[in-house]
Amino acid sequence: MDIKAYMHTLGKQARAAGRQLVGADTATKNAALLAIAEAMAESEAYLCEENQKDLAAGKANGLDAAMLDRLAITPAGVAGMIEGLRQVAALPDPCGEISDMCYRPSGIQLGKMRVPLGVIGIIYESRPNVTVDAASLCLKSGNATILRGGSEAFHSNQAIATCIAKGLEKAGLPASCVQVIETADRAAVGELITLSEFVDVIVPRGGKGLIERISRDATVPVLKHLDGICHVYIDDRADLDMAFNIALNAKTHRYGVCNAMETLLVAEGVAFEILPRLAEAYTAKGVELRGCEKTRAVIDAKVATEEDWGTEYLAPVLSIRVVEGMDQAMEHIEQYTSRHTEVIVTEDYSRAHKFLRQVDSSSVMVNASSRFADGFEYGLGAEIGISTDKLHARGPVGLEGLTSQKWIVFGTGQIRD
Amino acid sequence: MDIKAYMHTLGKQARAAGRQLVGADTATKNAALLAIAEAMAESEAYLCEENQKDLAAGKANGLDAAMLDRLAITPAGVAGMIEGLRQVAALPDPCGEISDMCYRPSGIQLGKMRVPLGVIGIIYESRPNVTVDAASLCLKSGNATILRGGSEAFHSNQAIATCIAKGLEKAGLPASCVQVIETADRAAVGELITLSEFVDVIVPRGGKGLIERISRDATVPVLKHLDGICHVYIDDRADLDMAFNIALNAKTHRYGVCNAMETLLVAEGVAFEILPRLAEAYTAKGVELRGCEKTRAVIDAKVATEEDWGTEYLAPVLSIRVVEGMDQAMEHIEQYTSRHTEVIVTEDYSRAHKFLRQVDSSSVMVNASSRFADGFEYGLGAEIGISTDKLHARGPVGLEGLTSQKWIVFGTGQIRD
Repeated sequence: MDIKAYMHTLGKQARAAGRQLVGADTATKNAALLAIAEAMAESEAYLCEENQKDLAAGKANGLDAAMLDRLAITPAGVAGMIEGLRQVAALPDPCGEISDMCYRPSGIQLGKMRVPLGVIGIIYESRPNVTVDAASLCLKSGNATILRGGSEAFHSNQAIATCIAKGLEKAGLPASCVQVIETADRAAVGELITLSEFVDVIVPRGGKGLIERISRDATVPVLKHLDGICHVYIDDRADLDMAFNIALNAKTHRYGVCNAMETLLVAEGVAFEILPRLAEAYTAKGVELRGCEKTRAVIDAKVATEEDWGTEYLAPVLSIRVVEGMDQAMEHIEQYTSRHTEVIVTEDYSRAHKFLRQVDSSSVMVNASSRFADGFEYGLGAEIGISTDKLHARGPVGLEGLTSQKWIVFGTGQIRD
Repeated sequence: MDIKAYMHTLGKQARAAGRQLVGADTATKNAALLAIAEAMAESEAYLCEENQKDLAAGKANGLDAAMLDRLAITPAGVAGMIEGLRQVAALPDPCGEISDMCYRPSGIQLGKMRVPLGVIGIIYESRPNVTVDAASLCLKSGNATILRGGSEAFHSNQAIATCIAKGLEKAGLPASCVQVIETADRAAVGELITLSEFVDVIVPRGGKGLIERISRDATVPVLKHLDGICHVYIDDRADLDMAFNIALNAKTHRYGVCNAMETLLVAEGVAFEILPRLAEAYTAKGVELRGCEKTRAVIDAKVATEEDWGTEYLAPVLSIRVVEGMDQAMEHIEQYTSRHTEVIVTEDYSRAHKFLRQVDSSSVMVNASSRFADGFEYGLGAEIGISTDKLHARGPVGLEGLTSQKWIVFGTGQIRD
């Protein structure tokens, strides 16, 4: 197989399909999403069978239990994907939205129209449900997609692709609106991320290694999400009960998520009051604590090293630092943050104001758990990822982040003098 | 000089200055802009003297008259730069703007705050006034800047840098808010565009060669403007007087600008009526015409080659193609456009609607001259460039394009269940 030629063909087809999708109305796109759901419902047994091939190969290749679990498609998993498709169909269509219309002194009427980006390349790791999630968000936002899943989910993804193609065709849209790469050859990824002529943006979903590699080698722009090293700072003017609840929730609600707190910063004025209480609660939940010297003077904790401050644990581990006050907390954040989400707990108006304005992360919160930094909680309906970039889309990226705005002008014959 | 170490130092200083600028209020930024204007007014003679060194070197190096003209700083030129600074000071401050505030079902209050990008690198060619224009837009939008002008304007840019530093210091801001690279060594550009740790975005301003080179080699995101291959399509349902005026204005109002029309598309139903009239007017203005076969059956024109359709002339040259109707015009545009600006002249409602929705360029116009695609005409006050990218900023980029929006959350102790 000539991978270069194959990817060029996929790209060309995707561009043509994307051009067609720009003109597709909302009803057609929704009909396609619902038809895909129906095709998946009819193919439940087939999807599970094909998934068994991947699971068997995964076991033979020594994948661990957690990876096999992520890879598995169960009837409940199929139902979840179907529900996801229905939810995306029910979301408002971002395309064609016109805003900021105004008359300019020249007499032209100027505004902005929201339009699809064109063609989106998605590169992801084991979970096969990403195939449906990503394809449905791209389709709803009027974009053609080229998907590249992990080789360990190859058969599952191909089976899902069959259902997607059926649904698209039933709704009268070309099957090439959603193309799943039909080879496990790794060279396909290299081609996809440099296919500037046909691909407008790459969304990598997976571990840090995958995203760094893609960002380094891509010539197509990448919408990326690196670490989630999120901080909660408990100010000395915090309501300490509130601070306790937020700090506990931000760390222990779920461990393996990017919006979990990884470092707790505590003002020294309240460290003696709040830290023992928190330490007891964390320890009861099995969270390992690592602290700075001042922290270790108050509670039992291992020594936090320089490396700890820059680590996304994604696990029941927490680093804790006692700081002089908000300014030092902000300095710590500026030095170690991955610019995902930071929280201040305080009742002080001026400090809340300064923290909100000056902390440079995709979400900045006062008196709320970092766990709210999420597309569903923010009302986006669904998310394709959480961007830690500053350009284009920042934070949770929903349908809007998969579109751009072009300028539109209604004239009545205006020319420039 | 160790260029790598030097650029690292500039980057580090810029990042620190940028952090300070995030907290700077509007009055301070405006005071700095006005103080820079004052410093330039006081230094008029010095600016012209230093410019003379560049002009003398330029003559010795055989720069042509047009290039020397662009390089020259006259007292009128200084006055223009001062006026520009005052205009930017008078623009609204985009930073800190909060939008879309709403309560979510969880009880958190969610919104978006507009914030600076951080540090912007600007790489440009001969005109030294870009030093002031770019620095002032970046400063107003709260960004630190590292500027790299053409080597032929080295002394002029350093002299301008001195005035900028004076103004910044007078307003109490660090001089490192605006740093002009103090070496003509080309290696500095290579360092700047890969300084991901300290630079958030690169804005290249200059010819296509410069921009392509930078886009290829940069690891920092690039806000780029490539060609302006703009089309005007005259539909067979156009008001032909209006079409005549727009087609003439779009080509002949100014030739060397990116929003000038380069290709005229005419529906065959009106070609016999409109083309001879237009040809006469173009010829009277000295515009060279190049046409397809059908065009040449109606008017005198050279043969337009495949290359012509993809060329930005920036000169009194126009390529003309007679098409069957709007669909073929849209196909032509899709194939050859640089996605800058396209115009349809028509009185047909449905065609106007389809053209606006489906043509994928940064500005799409009905019945107006492409020459309106411009930051001033769009009310942005000033522009750092016109983006032909789809991500982040599209079309004319003003202060807003130099900012991003972060999510902000006001909570009252909310945690996730």
